[in-house]
Amino acid sequence: MSTFPITDKTGITRLATRGVYDREAIYGVLDEVLFCTLAYVRDGQPFQIPTGFCRMDDKLYIHGSVGSSYLRAMASSKCPVCISVTQLDGLVLARSAFHHSVNYRSVVLFSTPELVTGNDELYRALETFTNKMCPGRWADIRKPTDAEWKATMVLSFKIEEASAKVRTGPPIDDADDYALDIWAGVQPIKTVRGVPEADPDLKAGVKVPEYLR
Amino acid sequence: MSTFPITDKTGITRLATRGVYDREAIYGVLDEVLFCTLAYVRDGQPFQIPTGFCRMDDKLYIHGSVGSSYLRAMASSKCPVCISVTQLDGLVLARSAFHHSVNYRSVVLFSTPELVTGNDELYRALETFTNKMCPGRWADIRKPTDAEWKATMVLSFKIEEASAKVRTGPPIDDADDYALDIWAGVQPIKTVRGVPEADPDLKAGVKVPEYLR
Repeated sequence: MSTFPITDKTGITRLATRGVYDREAIYGVLDEVLFCTLAYVRDGQPFQIPTGFCRMDDKLYIHGSVGSSYLRAMASSKCPVCISVTQLDGLVLARSAFHHSVNYRSVVLFSTPELVTGNDELYRALETFTNKMCPGRWADIRKPTDAEWKATMVLSFKIEEASAKVRTGPPIDDADDYALDIWAGVQPIKTVRGVPEADPDLKAGVKVPEYLR
Repeated sequence: MSTFPITDKTGITRLATRGVYDREAIYGVLDEVLFCTLAYVRDGQPFQIPTGFCRMDDKLYIHGSVGSSYLRAMASSKCPVCISVTQLDGLVLARSAFHHSVNYRSVVLFSTPELVTGNDELYRALETFTNKMCPGRWADIRKPTDAEWKATMVLSFKIEEASAKVRTGPPIDDADDYALDIWAGVQPIKTVRGVPEADPDLKAGVKVPEYLR
């Protein structure tokens, strides 16, 4: 199992024991969480875009319209970007206000955008993205036409400089506070997929597919 | 009901009809979502920190340890920051791959950090933060000691330049595709608070408080 090198950008200095550099652990977060935020700099000013993404091998992929000015600018400038992905797992309710915390898994990575031009990589990125959103969906839907492919821009980001930060478990209070009559523990936070709601214009007789039940 | 001015940084150019500049709508997202990502620039390189936050009036607040190097740097540099907050509400499953989308509410705002020094504002920020995480919690817990207050740094960000982007509703497919035998609709995504799990070291006899049931 490989780990990412700890660099001056990815080294966790604050609460260093929460730092995770293991590739499998970092990929696990990237493959579970449905959106990332991408930060870039223009004229010294930071900007952020929340966007869906997927991972294949050691690259992270985003896509959008060729009409998107920020995607076009990013493809041509190859500017440095920072991408973060966060999953909140629980509220850590300590006896003291001071020791309240959250359980979470977050990944921060540094990379540069690369325009994807190969048809095979383009196709697989869109398939992987769609099946991450909804496992089994790609096989079921109308595939892009030539015109739709031409209207779609895909960017890749090599994952070379990345770290995760993870907290799990119950609160850690000061020794004296354990005697207080205050409830302490964790309230789990979950991201849940609900029951699919049919399009009001759904063709009569079309059933909810197995993969969505 | 007031709206934020549309600036060159906050104007939504791509899918402009999804742009929302209404103050109440933007505050609604900020008050519901539990974490933000904060982006800043150091030596031309963008960085991001996911962190809990709360809002009071027209300011957003984050806090952390006075030992946090990024918080200290931010307090002294007053560098421009970009903060984003995103709630994913649903997967929009169209008949065509091309028209797949997501329902979401996201806020992006631009500001500069301000170190909070007034005791009253400091106290109210921590109280608001704790009660946002867990409504009713602040009244129940051991309040910070003088030493704990001294170890806590709070930064505020005036909310002056902000916009939201929102998508709701069913998929919008090409006219011809509505005749296809493909299921289409929305799979809702919800962030759910689970049943509280007691600290294994909880003092015997302490019950789960009413506000957590």
